[in-house]
Amino acid sequence: MIATEKKLIESIRRLAAKNPNRAVVRGIGDDCAVLRLSPGHELLLTTDFSIEDVHFRRKWHPTRSVGHRCLARGLSDIAAMGGEPIACFLSLGLPPNLPQDWADDFLKGLVRLAKQYGVQLAGGDTSAAPQITADIVVAGQLPAGEAVLRSGAHPGDLIYVTGQLGSSTAVLQKLFAGRRLKPSPSSRHFFPEPRLNVGYWLRRRCLATALIDLSDGLSIDLGHICDESRVSALIDSRKVPVARKATLQLALHGGEDYELLFTASPRTKIPASIHGVKVTRIGSITRKDYRSAIKILDDNGKQRTLQPLGWQHFRK
Amino acid sequence: MIATEKKLIESIRRLAAKNPNRAVVRGIGDDCAVLRLSPGHELLLTTDFSIEDVHFRRKWHPTRSVGHRCLARGLSDIAAMGGEPIACFLSLGLPPNLPQDWADDFLKGLVRLAKQYGVQLAGGDTSAAPQITADIVVAGQLPAGEAVLRSGAHPGDLIYVTGQLGSSTAVLQKLFAGRRLKPSPSSRHFFPEPRLNVGYWLRRRCLATALIDLSDGLSIDLGHICDESRVSALIDSRKVPVARKATLQLALHGGEDYELLFTASPRTKIPASIHGVKVTRIGSITRKDYRSAIKILDDNGKQRTLQPLGWQHFRK
Repeated sequence: MIATEKKLIESIRRLAAKNPNRAVVRGIGDDCAVLRLSPGHELLLTTDFSIEDVHFRRKWHPTRSVGHRCLARGLSDIAAMGGEPIACFLSLGLPPNLPQDWADDFLKGLVRLAKQYGVQLAGGDTSAAPQITADIVVAGQLPAGEAVLRSGAHPGDLIYVTGQLGSSTAVLQKLFAGRRLKPSPSSRHFFPEPRLNVGYWLRRRCLATALIDLSDGLSIDLGHICDESRVSALIDSRKVPVARKATLQLALHGGEDYELLFTASPRTKIPASIHGVKVTRIGSITRKDYRSAIKILDDNGKQRTLQPLGWQHFRK
Repeated sequence: MIATEKKLIESIRRLAAKNPNRAVVRGIGDDCAVLRLSPGHELLLTTDFSIEDVHFRRKWHPTRSVGHRCLARGLSDIAAMGGEPIACFLSLGLPPNLPQDWADDFLKGLVRLAKQYGVQLAGGDTSAAPQITADIVVAGQLPAGEAVLRSGAHPGDLIYVTGQLGSSTAVLQKLFAGRRLKPSPSSRHFFPEPRLNVGYWLRRRCLATALIDLSDGLSIDLGHICDESRVSALIDSRKVPVARKATLQLALHGGEDYELLFTASPRTKIPASIHGVKVTRIGSITRKDYRSAIKILDDNGKQRTLQPLGWQHFRK
C-alpha cells in the first residue's frame, strides 16, 4: 500500500531538500514555489507526461529508469533551447494499491538525475490515479533574448545531429517482441542523458540558427524546424549516424533518442564533437517546398520525400 | 473520437493565441515556453491535478465547469501568495474514445477564466490516458521578497477568512446523494472565483503576516499555517461564516471553497470587505501547543481540539 498523501509529500520533501539550487527562494511547503532568476535572464518552462502503458511499462522498465526518463524528457527540452535547468516540479498520480517501494525507487531515479544537473525538486502535486501518471515540469533560465528557437533556420544552413540515432526504439522493438533486457546504465533507452552541455555550448557561442531535441523522431522533429522556420530540408541517408543494433529506418523515425538536432550557417565551423558527444552533418536546409517538407537522398543518390512517421507510428 | 494529437495541439494553440500576456516571449510552438518577468520580480509556480473520478465526475460536472475548476485551482494558489498570474501550461491526457466536444468545451471553460485574468495558455503536453487527466501549471510573479508565505504568523495575530465556507462540499454531498443539480455560473462549487484581487490587495499593503487558500478545508489549511509558522490557533465556532445551505461542520472541514485565510497583527486594521468580498475575523494565533494545533470554542464557550479532517475525509 502506498503511504498516505502526507507521508508521500514528506518523503518527496526530504529528497528535495538534499539538492538545493540557489535560484529557488521557496520550494515545497507553500501555495507556490518562489524562484529568483539571475538578473537579465528569461525563464524557460516545459511540461511532459510519463503515463504507465503509454510512456513506459512496469514489466519492461526498472522503476529507477522510469524516474530517470521522466525528468530526462524535461531536461532535454531545456537543452533544446540552450538553457540552464534550475528546478523541477513533479505531479504524481498513483494507484492506491501500488507498493510503496515503487514510489521510493521512482523518486530515487528522478532525484539522482536532478542532482547531476543541480536541479532542485521544488514542488508538485500528488493524487490517486488509475494508472501511474507523472507530469514533470522543468524550469530553466538563460540570458534574455538568447533562446535558440525552432524558427531560425535559413535556406543554405547545414543540419547537424549529436550522437547516434535509433537505439532507443531498437530496444523498444525488442521489448515488444517479448525479449527480457538487462538495462545498462549507459542505455539511451533506459537512462537517456539529456544533452544539456551541448545545448548550452551552442547557445553561448551563438553557433546554431535553430535547435530541437529528438524526442518524436528525426522525421517529425526536423519537420517542426521546417514548419516554424518556413523552410524545407534535404537529408543524405548515407550521412545519418545509425546506432549499433539500429537500422536507418529506426534512426529516421524512432523516438526518444533525446539527441539534439541543429542548423548552422555554412560559414560556421562546427567541431566534430562537443563535450565528448559526436556531431554529424546530415543535410541542409532548402527553400520551402509545399509538396514535401523533407526530402531524403537514398543510397543511389535519388531524392524522395521523407514522410513524418515518427514515434506515434512505432507505438501501434 | 478525439482528434489526433496534432489537431488537438493546433486547437489549443488557436485558443491560446487569442489571449496574449506580454510577459510571454514565446508560447506554444517550441521546446520550452520563454517568459520574461518584470524587473526585480520573482516567479511563482504551482501545479495541480484534475483527474476524472478523483477531482470531478463527467456525469456531475458540466465540461466547462471542469475546465474552469482546473485553472481556478492554480490561480487560487497564486492568489494565496499575493501574486499576479501570467501564464498557464496544460498537460492533458485523454481517453482515445472521448468525444471531441468534451475536449473543446473543457478548453473553452479554461480559456474563459484565463482571459478574465489575462493569463496566457503558453504550453503543455498531450497524451492518451485511461481517464481524463489534466495537470495545470500556473506561473505568476510579484516583486522580489514580497511573497506572503504560510510561515509568517505570530502568537497574538488575528485570523481572517474571505467569503463564506462550506458551500462547495454541501453541493458535493447532494451530488453524492444522487441529486441532479443545475449549476449556476455563481456556484462556488462549479465555477469558483479565485480571490486574486484580495490576495494582491493584501500583499500590496503588507497587511497579512501569513496567507493560504482554502482548498483542503479550514481545519487542514489552517493547520498548514500552524505547521509552517510553528504556532497554534484558536477558532471561535460562532464567528465562522457558514455558507447558506452548508453547516458548521462543512465550513470547518469541507474543501474546495477557494476562499483565502490570512493572519494579521492585532494592530492592523482589516476592512469588513476587500474588492467586494466579505472578510470575517474567526480567531487568533496562539503559542505552539504540541498537544493540539487548533482549538475551537464551541457554542457554550468551551474549548476543544479541532481535528484536521478536511477534504480527504469527505471523499470516502
